[in-house]
Amino acid sequence: MVIDPRRDCDIYIELATIESVDITYILETHRNEDYVIGSLELQNLIPSVRIGHSAATNFKYGDDRLQDDETLRVGKLVVRSIHTPGHTDDSMCFVVSDSEVGSDPLLVFTGDTLFVNEVGRTDLVDPKKHSEMSYKLWHSLHEKVLPLGDGVIIYPGHGSGSVCGGAIGSREFSTIGYEKRNNYWLRMDEESFVEHKTRQELTLSSYFKRCEKLNTDGPPLIADLDPLQMLNTEAFAERIESEDSVVIDTRLAHKFVSEHIPDSISMDIDNMGLYVGWVLSPDDSHLLVLDSPMDLDEAVGMLYRVGIDCVVGYLNGGFEAWKSTGKPVGSVPVYDIQSVQIGLNDGSIRLVDVRQPHETIGDRIENSTNLPLSDMLMEIDDLDPDLPIATICPAGVRSTTAASILQREGFEQAGISEIGLKEWKLQGLPTSSK
Amino acid sequence: MVIDPRRDCDIYIELATIESVDITYILETHRNEDYVIGSLELQNLIPSVRIGHSAATNFKYGDDRLQDDETLRVGKLVVRSIHTPGHTDDSMCFVVSDSEVGSDPLLVFTGDTLFVNEVGRTDLVDPKKHSEMSYKLWHSLHEKVLPLGDGVIIYPGHGSGSVCGGAIGSREFSTIGYEKRNNYWLRMDEESFVEHKTRQELTLSSYFKRCEKLNTDGPPLIADLDPLQMLNTEAFAERIESEDSVVIDTRLAHKFVSEHIPDSISMDIDNMGLYVGWVLSPDDSHLLVLDSPMDLDEAVGMLYRVGIDCVVGYLNGGFEAWKSTGKPVGSVPVYDIQSVQIGLNDGSIRLVDVRQPHETIGDRIENSTNLPLSDMLMEIDDLDPDLPIATICPAGVRSTTAASILQREGFEQAGISEIGLKEWKLQGLPTSSK
Amino acid sequence: MVIDPRRDCDIYIELATIESVDITYILETHRNEDYVIGSLELQNLIPSVRIGHSAATNFKYGDDRLQDDETLRVGKLVVRSIHTPGHTDDSMCFVVSDSEVGSDPLLVFTGDTLFVNEVGRTDLVDPKKHSEMSYKLWHSLHEKVLPLGDGVIIYPGHGSGSVCGGAIGSREFSTIGYEKRNNYWLRMDEESFVEHKTRQELTLSSYFKRCEKLNTDGPPLIADLDPLQMLNTEAFAERIESEDSVVIDTRLAHKFVSEHIPDSISMDIDNMGLYVGWVLSPDDSHLLVLDSPMDLDEAVGMLYRVGIDCVVGYLNGGFEAWKSTGKPVGSVPVYDIQSVQIGLNDGSIRLVDVRQPHETIGDRIENSTNLPLSDMLMEIDDLDPDLPIATICPAGVRSTTAASILQREGFEQAGISEIGLKEWKLQGLPTSSK
Amino acid sequence: MVIDPRRDCDIYIELATIESVDITYILETHRNEDYVIGSLELQNLIPSVRIGHSAATNFKYGDDRLQDDETLRVGKLVVRSIHTPGHTDDSMCFVVSDSEVGSDPLLVFTGDTLFVNEVGRTDLVDPKKHSEMSYKLWHSLHEKVLPLGDGVIIYPGHGSGSVCGGAIGSREFSTIGYEKRNNYWLRMDEESFVEHKTRQELTLSSYFKRCEKLNTDGPPLIADLDPLQMLNTEAFAERIESEDSVVIDTRLAHKFVSEHIPDSISMDIDNMGLYVGWVLSPDDSHLLVLDSPMDLDEAVGMLYRVGIDCVVGYLNGGFEAWKSTGKPVGSVPVYDIQSVQIGLNDGSIRLVDVRQPHETIGDRIENSTNLPLSDMLMEIDDLDPDLPIATICPAGVRSTTAASILQREGFEQAGISEIGLKEWKLQGLPTSSK
Repeated sequence: MVIDPRRDCDIYIELATIESVDITYILETHRNEDYVIGSLELQNLIPSVRIGHSAATNFKYGDDRLQDDETLRVGKLVVRSIHTPGHTDDSMCFVVSDSEVGSDPLLVFTGDTLFVNEVGRTDLVDPKKHSEMSYKLWHSLHEKVLPLGDGVIIYPGHGSGSVCGGAIGSREFSTIGYEKRNNYWLRMDEESFVEHKTRQELTLSSYFKRCEKLNTDGPPLIADLDPLQMLNTEAFAERIESEDSVVIDTRLAHKFVSEHIPDSISMDIDNMGLYVGWVLSPDDSHLLVLDSPMDLDEAVGMLYRVGIDCVVGYLNGGFEAWKSTGKPVGSVPVYDIQSVQIGLNDGSIRLVDVRQPHETIGDRIENSTNLPLSDMLMEIDDLDPDLPIATICPAGVRSTTAASILQREGFEQAGISEIGLKEWKLQGLPTSSK
Repeated sequence: MVIDPRRDCDIYIELATIESVDITYILETHRNEDYVIGSLELQNLIPSVRIGHSAATNFKYGDDRLQDDETLRVGKLVVRSIHTPGHTDDSMCFVVSDSEVGSDPLLVFTGDTLFVNEVGRTDLVDPKKHSEMSYKLWHSLHEKVLPLGDGVIIYPGHGSGSVCGGAIGSREFSTIGYEKRNNYWLRMDEESFVEHKTRQELTLSSYFKRCEKLNTDGPPLIADLDPLQMLNTEAFAERIESEDSVVIDTRLAHKFVSEHIPDSISMDIDNMGLYVGWVLSPDDSHLLVLDSPMDLDEAVGMLYRVGIDCVVGYLNGGFEAWKSTGKPVGSVPVYDIQSVQIGLNDGSIRLVDVRQPHETIGDRIENSTNLPLSDMLMEIDDLDPDLPIATICPAGVRSTTAASILQREGFEQAGISEIGLKEWKLQGLPTSSK
Repeated sequence: MVIDPRRDCDIYIELATIESVDITYILETHRNEDYVIGSLELQNLIPSVRIGHSAATNFKYGDDRLQDDETLRVGKLVVRSIHTPGHTDDSMCFVVSDSEVGSDPLLVFTGDTLFVNEVGRTDLVDPKKHSEMSYKLWHSLHEKVLPLGDGVIIYPGHGSGSVCGGAIGSREFSTIGYEKRNNYWLRMDEESFVEHKTRQELTLSSYFKRCEKLNTDGPPLIADLDPLQMLNTEAFAERIESEDSVVIDTRLAHKFVSEHIPDSISMDIDNMGLYVGWVLSPDDSHLLVLDSPMDLDEAVGMLYRVGIDCVVGYLNGGFEAWKSTGKPVGSVPVYDIQSVQIGLNDGSIRLVDVRQPHETIGDRIENSTNLPLSDMLMEIDDLDPDLPIATICPAGVRSTTAASILQREGFEQAGISEIGLKEWKLQGLPTSSK
Repeated sequence: MVIDPRRDCDIYIELATIESVDITYILETHRNEDYVIGSLELQNLIPSVRIGHSAATNFKYGDDRLQDDETLRVGKLVVRSIHTPGHTDDSMCFVVSDSEVGSDPLLVFTGDTLFVNEVGRTDLVDPKKHSEMSYKLWHSLHEKVLPLGDGVIIYPGHGSGSVCGGAIGSREFSTIGYEKRNNYWLRMDEESFVEHKTRQELTLSSYFKRCEKLNTDGPPLIADLDPLQMLNTEAFAERIESEDSVVIDTRLAHKFVSEHIPDSISMDIDNMGLYVGWVLSPDDSHLLVLDSPMDLDEAVGMLYRVGIDCVVGYLNGGFEAWKSTGKPVGSVPVYDIQSVQIGLNDGSIRLVDVRQPHETIGDRIENSTNLPLSDMLMEIDDLDPDLPIATICPAGVRSTTAASILQREGFEQAGISEIGLKEWKLQGLPTSSK
C-alpha cells in the first residue's frame, strides 16, 4: 500500500522489489494541492494496483471512492478510512490494525489533518471558508483522530518545512498520546482553535491551483513527456536563445553567486524542493546546470513533482564546460554589511527580506521590505530597477534565488546581503520585534 | 547514540556519515549473552565515544556505570536510564525525550525487557533463579516501563526469530499503549506471570556463556584478527586437510543438498544468523564457500557476531570452481515421503525433528525424535550411525544443516526428509497434538 | 565518437559523463544485420551528435554519407573512413590517428571486415553473390586494411560467439601485424580465400532481414514503446491467456528444467544474447520471468537489441511467487543416457542435436538428427509429436531452450538429454567424424 | 597475473572476483622507487600467489628470482621475462603470447623501460652512472624490446604525469611499430641517445630512497597499521596539538585558499598523487580533512602508496563541522596581478615559481625564483620570512600547497599569485625564454 505517492515513483517499485511484496493499493488522503500525485504514474507501471480516494471529490481517475468507515485489506493489515474534513472537504485518515494481533488501531496515516507539533492548514479551500474549515478540523481531530487512543502511532503527510503547516516539527514520528500532551493546537477548545487558525497566515502560491487541477484530472505520464537531452555547450547556448527557455542552476548558492550562466535562476538542489513551485512556470522550457550529473534524477524529479513538465535537458560537463569555452559568465553582487546598514538609513540600498510573511513575525530588520520569494514575480513592480537591491534570508539560499530572478527581470543592481539573517543576529545587529 | 552495537560496526560509521552527525554515546541495555557486543570495536574507530552500561555488572571496559534514573544529553535528546532487572540483574531501559518539545517521554529502548508481543526471558541468569528473575521482570515492567505512558513508542532489543524471547512479533514497531492491550504477558498479574514464565522452555546454547564472558571483558578487535584470504581451489583443498578446519557453505540449502564439498556444513546465508552460534566452535578454523563473493562481508559478520573469530578465508569462484577441477563432491540423501512414513512405522528410517522443543509443543509427528539443532552435537550419541536418518524442520533449511553435521560426524545415511513440516501439514499428513 | 552503438544506449551517456567528454559523432561501419543499431536512439538523447555512415546504402536517417578516404576530426583524433566492401557493399573501416603525435595510423575500427582470428562473412548480402563478395573482401583486406601497417591496433565489430564470423577469437585486442602472422584467412591468396569462403556455412536467421530493414529506416525509439509493467501473479496469469503472449524465463537452464510456468520459453540470461533473435517473434507480446529483478534491464536490453519491441512486463517475485500461489508448474523431461542410447538404436527416442550445422562438422552422434536452434520453428514439421524427443547441445543451455519451444508447440514428450555433448565426449561415448 | 601491484590492492581482488579468475602470479618489473609495491600485501590476501622479480636485486621477500629469457605459464598465456637494464640494473620486461594461437609475442609489459612517447629515466641508480645506464637502456631497447616486432602492443609502467619519465604521452596504448615511428628517443643512435639522456634533468625526491628500501625489504602490511579513526571536532582539535601532527586538507585548492584549519597542508585529492611523496614525512602523524567522506579510501591509499603509514584519522563532518564550532580559521593571501608585477620590479613581493626545473626550461617569468615544490622544505632557508611571497604554478594547485607549507613554517606573508601561469600567458603577460 502506498499513501499519496510522489510522481517520480520508481522508489516504490524498488522498495517492493527489495521487500518482495506486491503493491496492491494506492490511497490518497485528499486531493493534494502542493505537489502532483503519482497515483496514475504508479498504476501505469503496476496495472493491478487499485487507486482509492475520497468520494467527496469528483476525481476523473481512480478505482474506489471511499466513504467514512470503509475497510480494506492489505496483506495482514486491515485499513479503515475515516473521513476527517478540515484541511479539505475530502480529507481522510487511514487507520491500520494488525490482523495477526487483533483489531486495535496500531497506526494512522493522518495526511494533512495532523502533523508532528502541528495541524493542517484550513485556508486553502476558500479564504471565505477559513473559519468553517477550521471548525471542521477541530471536530475531525477531537471526534475522529484523538479517540483512536494514546498508543496509536501517527504517520503524517508532511514533515518539517512543508508549506502545508505552519511549524511542523523536525521529528518524523510521534503518537497520539504524545501529541495530545505536547501539540499546542490539540490543547485548545473549539473556539480558541478556530480563532487561532483563522489568524494564521501561510504561503499561498499559484502552483497550488495547477496541482489541484492535475490531481483532479490525473496528471500526464512521465513516459509521455519528451526525454531529457544531454546538451553540449554549443547546443545549450543555442537553446538558451529560444524565447521560452529558462536555465535552472542547481549548484550550491555560493557557487552561483561567484559565477553562473547569465540570466539563469539559482535553485540549490538541497533546497529547491521547498521553492521550486513558487518560482517556475509550466509554460517555460527548462534547461539544467548541475553540480554533478548524479543530481539529474533528483533535480528533474523535483520539477515534475510540481508539474513543471517541460525539462529540455542538461548541460554536459556542467558550468565548468561552459566556462572553459569562454562564454559569458555572470555573478551576483554581494552588498557588504556596512553598505547595507547605510542603505537602511539613507535609502541608497533597498534591503529586501524574501522570507514568507509568517517567518517575519516579531523578527524584522527595520526599514527592510518584506517581499516573499513566493510572490517575487507578482510584486516585482514595487521595486525600483535603478536602485541597488540587497536580498536577505536566513542563510543565503533563498536570497540568491531571489537575486537571480531579479537579475533575469533586468534589475542589474539586484544582489544579496553579504550575511544572512542568522549571522545578522549572531553579530548582534538590530532587529525589531514589531 | 548507538544502543547495543553489533560487532561488525561499520554500519554505524556509515549512518553517521550519511546523516552528518557525531556518535557521542554507546549505551548497552545489559551484558548481552547471545551476541558479541561491538562497543569497544566502535570506540576504537571513534575514540571520543563514551560507553555507558549498568553499574550492576563488573565490566572490564567502558566509561560510565549507569544507575537507575541517570540523565544523559545526546544532541537535542535527553536520555534517562531506568533500571529494569528481570532478564538480567543489570538490565536497563533508556527513556528518550525531545528537549525541543518538553520533558515527556517519547520513546524507550527496552533492550531484552519488553519486546513486541513478548517479554524478556528470565531463565538465563541461573535456572535456580528462574522464578526470582520472573518476579523482578514483572515489577520492572509494571513499575518502571508501563507507567511511562501509553503514547510512548518502544524500540526493543530483538525482533522476530530471536532466541531471547519465545514468540516475538514480526512487527518492528509498537507503543506501550498497544502492548498493554495486546501483549499476552502484560495482562497477567504477578503470580500468573511468574508461573507462566517459569514453565517457559527456551533454547540454551553453550555460545551464550562465551558471549557473556567476551561481553564482560571486552571482545578482541576485528582489526587484530587475521585478514581473510582469497583461496584458489588448490589452496582451499590443502587447507581443508588441517585437523581444525571446518568448511561452511552459505549457499541456499537446496543447492547444498544436490552437491557440496564433502564434510562441509550447510549454513544458508539468509538463515545462518539464527543458528550459527549453536553449531560452530570458536576453536575451529573456518573456510567459506559462498554463493556469490558479495555475500562475504555478511557471512563473516555473522560469524564474528557470535565470537567465531577464526575465519581463514573463502574459496575463489565458489563451489563451481571446486567442481570444475574434478574434486570430490558430496550430496545429502533425500528420503521420500513414502519411505519416511514406512520408517515411522517399522523403524527402518528414523525421523529426527530438529526444531527447538518449544516449537514442537502440540505439533509433533508420532514416532519422530526431537533432537534440536542447538543440541545436535551434544546428543549425537543417541543416534544409531547404521540406520538411515531423515531430518525434518519446517522448510528444509535447518534439516539440511543438521544432516550436514551428522554426515560430518560419520553418519553416512543421514539425510533430509523430502518435504518439510509445512508441506507435511499442507498435504494433510498426520501430526499429533500431544 | 561511438562506433555502431547498441540500442539500449544509456551506457554511452554514462561513459561520456564519467569521462567528462562530449559525444560528437556516431559512426556506423555498415548497415548492420544482426542487431538493431542505436544511432537514432543516442541522437535523440544527444541532439548535437552527427550520425555518419556509408554513402553506399540509402539510409533514411543520418547526417553524413561517407565515401572512401574522408576525414573527420573528433577532439584530438583524426578519423579517416576507408571503404572496405566484402561483408556488405557499404562496409567501411575507420582509421584513427593521434594529431598530437602525427599522422601515422594508430588504430582502426574494422567493423565486420576483420576480426581477431577471423574475417567477416560474405554470404549475407545474397547467396548468389557469395563468391563475388568474398573476392571483394580479399581485396579490401589486402589493399586497404593490411597496408595500414603492422603496428596498428584493430578494434573489430564483434567478439567471440558472434554469428557474424565463423570462429572469432576470445581475445579482445590484436594488431595488424599479429593478425597477418596468425590469422588463417589472411595468409591465403585470392583464389584460395574465395574458395574457402564460399564453402563456409554459417547461421542464417529471419531476424537478420528484420534488423536490416530497421537499420535502413531507423528503428523506433525505446521511449515510444510501452513502459514495462510490474505484474503480480494474478495479473501475470491473466496476461498469459492473451493469444499473442509468450513467457520468457531467463533463469538458469537447470532451474527451468526442474520447474517453470507451463509453455514458457527458456532463455538463460547469460546466453540469451546469442539465441534470442532466432527464437522470438516481433509480433508476440513478451512476459518475463527473472531470476532476480536486477536482471530486468539486461533482459529487456537484449530483446530490444534484436527488435523484439513488445515486452509487456515482468512477474513480481519471479517464479517463486508464481509457485507459492499454487498455480500449475511444468518441468522438462530429462532422458537418461541409457534410454538415449537405446533410442538411438531402436528409434524409441529421437536424439535431436540443436547445434548450428557448422558446429557439427566432423563431430556428430550417429543416428542423431541435426535440427539447429535457429531453424527449430521452421522445421518443426519434421518431428513426430508422438515420439519422445531428447534434445542435446554442448552444455544443456540451448537444448533446454529447444525443448521448451517444442513443449510449447505441443510436443509433450520433448525433453533434454541428461548429459550434454561435452560430457558425452568426456565419458567416451561414441561420436562420428563423418 | 598482476604486474607491479599498488599497495592498496583490493582492486585486484575485486577484478579477479568480477572476472572469475584466480590470481596466480605477481611480477615486478624492477625494484620500484616512486611508490611502495603491493606484492606482499596482495600475497597476504591470496597466499597461493607467487611473487616473481629480477634476480639482479637482493629482495628480502618473494618466490621466484627471474633471469633473462625465463618462461612462466599463466592460464592460457605464456609469459617470457627479458632482462632490460637501463632504468635500473634489475629492470625486466614481460613478453606475453597467446598459447591458443601460437608463440608470436602479442604484447609486452615494459615497466619503466619504454613508455608511450618516452623512455625510462636513467639517473636514479647513481648520478655517476647516468651515462652508463643510458647506454644500457639504448641497448635494451634496440636489442631486446624493439625486435619483438612492430605488431606487439606495449603496456608501460607509467602514464602521463609520472616522475619516472620526462614527458610521457597521455594515450594509454601503443605498439612497438607506432613508437618506432613516433617516439623521439627511439629514433636516435646510441651516441645521441646517451648524450640527450645525460642532459635530462628530472625530479629527485627523498621519498625515492624510502620506497626503494621498503621495496627491497618488503613493506609492512596495511592490516598491521593502526585503524583510521573518525574524529569529531573536539577530538580532532586535541589531536592537532600533538607535536608530530600534520593536517592534510584534500579539498579543492580554491576552497583551501578561502578558508582552512590553521597550519594544515593543502593537498587537492585530484592531484595529491603527484606531489604527496615530495611534501610529507613518514615520521609525522597525519590527520585528514576531506571534501566528502567518500574521498577517504582514495586519500589514504595515496598516502600508503608512498609509505606515509601513520594516518590517524579524519574529521567527521569535514571543514564545515570545524567552522560551525567557531574554531579558528585561516586563509591564504592572494596577491593580485598588479602587486605581483610591481613586486617583480621593486622586490616588494617575491614571486616563487614552484614548478619542477625541467618544466621551466625556456618558460620563465623574469625576476621570479624557481623553488620546486619537491625541494620546498629543503630550500626554505633561502626565503625571507619578512617579505610577502607569491607562489605560482600553472593552475593554482601546487602553488596553494606550497603556500600552505610556507605558512606552516611561519612565513605569514606567504600566499599565491591571483593567476596561474596558464592564465598569465593567456593574458599576454611577459615570460622569458632564457
